[in-house]
Amino acid sequence: MAVQKPSIPKGTRDFSPNEVAKRNFIINTIKNAFTTFGFQPIETPSFENYDTLMGKYGEEGDRLIFKILNSGDFTQGVKSEDWEAKNAQRLTPQLSEKALRYDLTVPFARYVVQHQNELTFPFKRYQIQPVWRADRPQKGRFREFYQCDADVVGSHSLWQEIEFIQLYDCVFTALNLKGVTIKINNRKILSGFAEMIGEQDKLIDFTVALDKLDKIGKEGVIAEMLAKGIGTEAIEKVKPIFSLEGSFAKKLEVLKAMLSSSETGLKGVEELSFVEQQLKHLPLQTALIDLDVTLARGLNYYTGAIFEIAAPEGVQMGSIGGGGRYDDLTSIFGLKGVSGIGVSFGLDRIGLVMDELNLFPETINNGLEILCLNFGDAEALQCTQLLQQLRQQGKRAALYPDAAKIKKQMEYANKNQIPFVIIIGESELQNGTFVLKNMLSGTQEVYKTSEVNTIVWQ
Amino acid sequence: MAVQKPSIPKGTRDFSPNEVAKRNFIINTIKNAFTTFGFQPIETPSFENYDTLMGKYGEEGDRLIFKILNSGDFTQGVKSEDWEAKNAQRLTPQLSEKALRYDLTVPFARYVVQHQNELTFPFKRYQIQPVWRADRPQKGRFREFYQCDADVVGSHSLWQEIEFIQLYDCVFTALNLKGVTIKINNRKILSGFAEMIGEQDKLIDFTVALDKLDKIGKEGVIAEMLAKGIGTEAIEKVKPIFSLEGSFAKKLEVLKAMLSSSETGLKGVEELSFVEQQLKHLPLQTALIDLDVTLARGLNYYTGAIFEIAAPEGVQMGSIGGGGRYDDLTSIFGLKGVSGIGVSFGLDRIGLVMDELNLFPETINNGLEILCLNFGDAEALQCTQLLQQLRQQGKRAALYPDAAKIKKQMEYANKNQIPFVIIIGESELQNGTFVLKNMLSGTQEVYKTSEVNTIVWQ
Repeated sequence: MAVQKPSIPKGTRDFSPNEVAKRNFIINTIKNAFTTFGFQPIETPSFENYDTLMGKYGEEGDRLIFKILNSGDFTQGVKSEDWEAKNAQRLTPQLSEKALRYDLTVPFARYVVQHQNELTFPFKRYQIQPVWRADRPQKGRFREFYQCDADVVGSHSLWQEIEFIQLYDCVFTALNLKGVTIKINNRKILSGFAEMIGEQDKLIDFTVALDKLDKIGKEGVIAEMLAKGIGTEAIEKVKPIFSLEGSFAKKLEVLKAMLSSSETGLKGVEELSFVEQQLKHLPLQTALIDLDVTLARGLNYYTGAIFEIAAPEGVQMGSIGGGGRYDDLTSIFGLKGVSGIGVSFGLDRIGLVMDELNLFPETINNGLEILCLNFGDAEALQCTQLLQQLRQQGKRAALYPDAAKIKKQMEYANKNQIPFVIIIGESELQNGTFVLKNMLSGTQEVYKTSEVNTIVWQ
Repeated sequence: MAVQKPSIPKGTRDFSPNEVAKRNFIINTIKNAFTTFGFQPIETPSFENYDTLMGKYGEEGDRLIFKILNSGDFTQGVKSEDWEAKNAQRLTPQLSEKALRYDLTVPFARYVVQHQNELTFPFKRYQIQPVWRADRPQKGRFREFYQCDADVVGSHSLWQEIEFIQLYDCVFTALNLKGVTIKINNRKILSGFAEMIGEQDKLIDFTVALDKLDKIGKEGVIAEMLAKGIGTEAIEKVKPIFSLEGSFAKKLEVLKAMLSSSETGLKGVEELSFVEQQLKHLPLQTALIDLDVTLARGLNYYTGAIFEIAAPEGVQMGSIGGGGRYDDLTSIFGLKGVSGIGVSFGLDRIGLVMDELNLFPETINNGLEILCLNFGDAEALQCTQLLQQLRQQGKRAALYPDAAKIKKQMEYANKNQIPFVIIIGESELQNGTFVLKNMLSGTQEVYKTSEVNTIVWQ
């Protein structure tokens, strides 16, 4: 066979030990918080039936879903006219019965409906698994990446909004990533705006423009709204939102006055007020909370609270988490009236922020702590007997496999940043001793082999 | 949209919280042992380039690899004659640039070659990720399943054979799965047999027949060998292997005498003798070791030691692990002369054996430990303040989100087997107290809210 130059598909990544250690540090911290809040893990298959995924993410989403080519003679049963016309779009569902999951939300909805008789509602689950998207790869955007989701389904209680705010605070505090901002909005407030401008069908144009307030300023937003056909009078009515400032409570006051004629809008204000009221008595540890009416993420999806997490001030990074309440996720699979709320953590971006702020503890690397040098089989046997005891103490320890030159073995220890080396040469073997060398300080001490369990490692 | 009846592709599985907990128990035990032995984690992408995988697993393997349909207009650039002939086999590489990984070994080889300049050899890695095979699903055989592999590349030392035997012993001991048998063989001994029968090209027929010794007995094996064209005289020469019995050392003696004219065969005996000699001084904790010359797994792949793990006697189950030494894994990707050795753990089967023997600890379920009943918003707020403290202690605790009937809330606690319930009703709220009810014993005690950190949980 010809030699192949090794490479991986674009938009995918190899993770070397140090990278896995960092990711696992974040994942384990998140898992730990999820568990403490009563969420339990589920896992779903990497690929779902074609029909389970298609049509759930809009046209663009459908295009970005990776489809799996049917096995065997996939040309059988394909409609001749589509084949002859080389109509890729019509051929896709005939050539593919399965597709890689695009997110964890639709598989979760499918899971809840399929297993509804085994579940006790409200059902709290978390799920940390990779998803795949045929997106154009770019900095920070990959074709395979992990999602970390926690959701509760089966209750409308606003105490869950509070729980998720606390969960975010708890995770970022545990990661030592202080000062993130939990931005919150409510879809009902956005609907209230739509009512105010009198054009429900302009809601998306409206929120898309509003979302740019940070970047293009009040004048820019107004210009875009006008360009989209939203009238001057309508814009006048919602003008207060361009200069919303002050505390959560103060912003709510302004919104309440502004939305006084919209029942839905007022309901949104009421829901956020509840959250604001309770949080007064439940101080967050390190996160900040802010009402942000420009927040709209997945507008067609959320029905109540909307969350998004911004990195600490001074760090340039898109949102590092988000979520919200949805009232009808499972109905497409036949289960109606199940309200849910969930949040997601952006694993890759959280990692980038932690790298930038140098927040990973030095201890996360779990490579070898002790290397036994190899002076030959008799000495190696003695080392291996020591290793059994060291490993039973939980130490990460191994023998250099070959009786190579000592210089080479020491280099191996240095390159792998192994802090301790154990040396058993001919004289140590005869004396029943070993030398323990601290690779950082360069000091070394002699122990009897019977003393291996008494060493104080430092 | 029409309502869809939810289902998953055949051969795949949903894992509910209890199943994830069991799997994680096994995975964490394995990971822990891997780390203690100095293996470090890597992760590779779920899909590789088509050419990376194809041609590595034989024709059958190629067929069982899941291919990903190219995105966009995949009909472009397809050769007209193949399209018109509906030649699926020739069309596959034109319709698909990527494929789901089939095992962890080929991606590992690709990784080592691609990253060779970053690695320090001998390089020890572990990898625990799912793989996919378009196999016909059956009991215990799935289209998506996890592999758990540990390998060392870059050394020929036989101390690594010993290390892997100890690793197996260590993992199964930690799982409390006592009495597994580590079966060991050596490819060079099998090659020696082939030399003895004088027909190197009959080696596969020979080992396939020999592998059935357990099932069809000596006479059956001989009949099959004869049917495959292996001569009577040749069979006579290897007859001692049909009745190999006794200790590891005793079997080696018989083999040594038998293979005296085969240099390769004697090398195999010598390698196994080294292992046997060292293990005398390195007693295993709970595993047994046995020389099994019928063991041949992946014959074209292994070049030295071959391992396979049998479940404890009395448990009906195929092998629950296996591995061996390979001398030329990375050469297909352009890196020659790198010897490697690795082992794999059969996660699903280990789980089945542990289920059968009832070995999972009761404590692996990590659902809620404490549920706070919800009597209304004022009481719920008080509960949520308690929850903050309980969670900081690491307790898994949550509020029932709705002020539902108490009977319903208690049923929720029971169904989810939550051992403790905290009750704050109107009078507790006024008195600054809470009731802690033990759901198992039915007893309950009253605490001040300030005493929440002093509770002795039992």
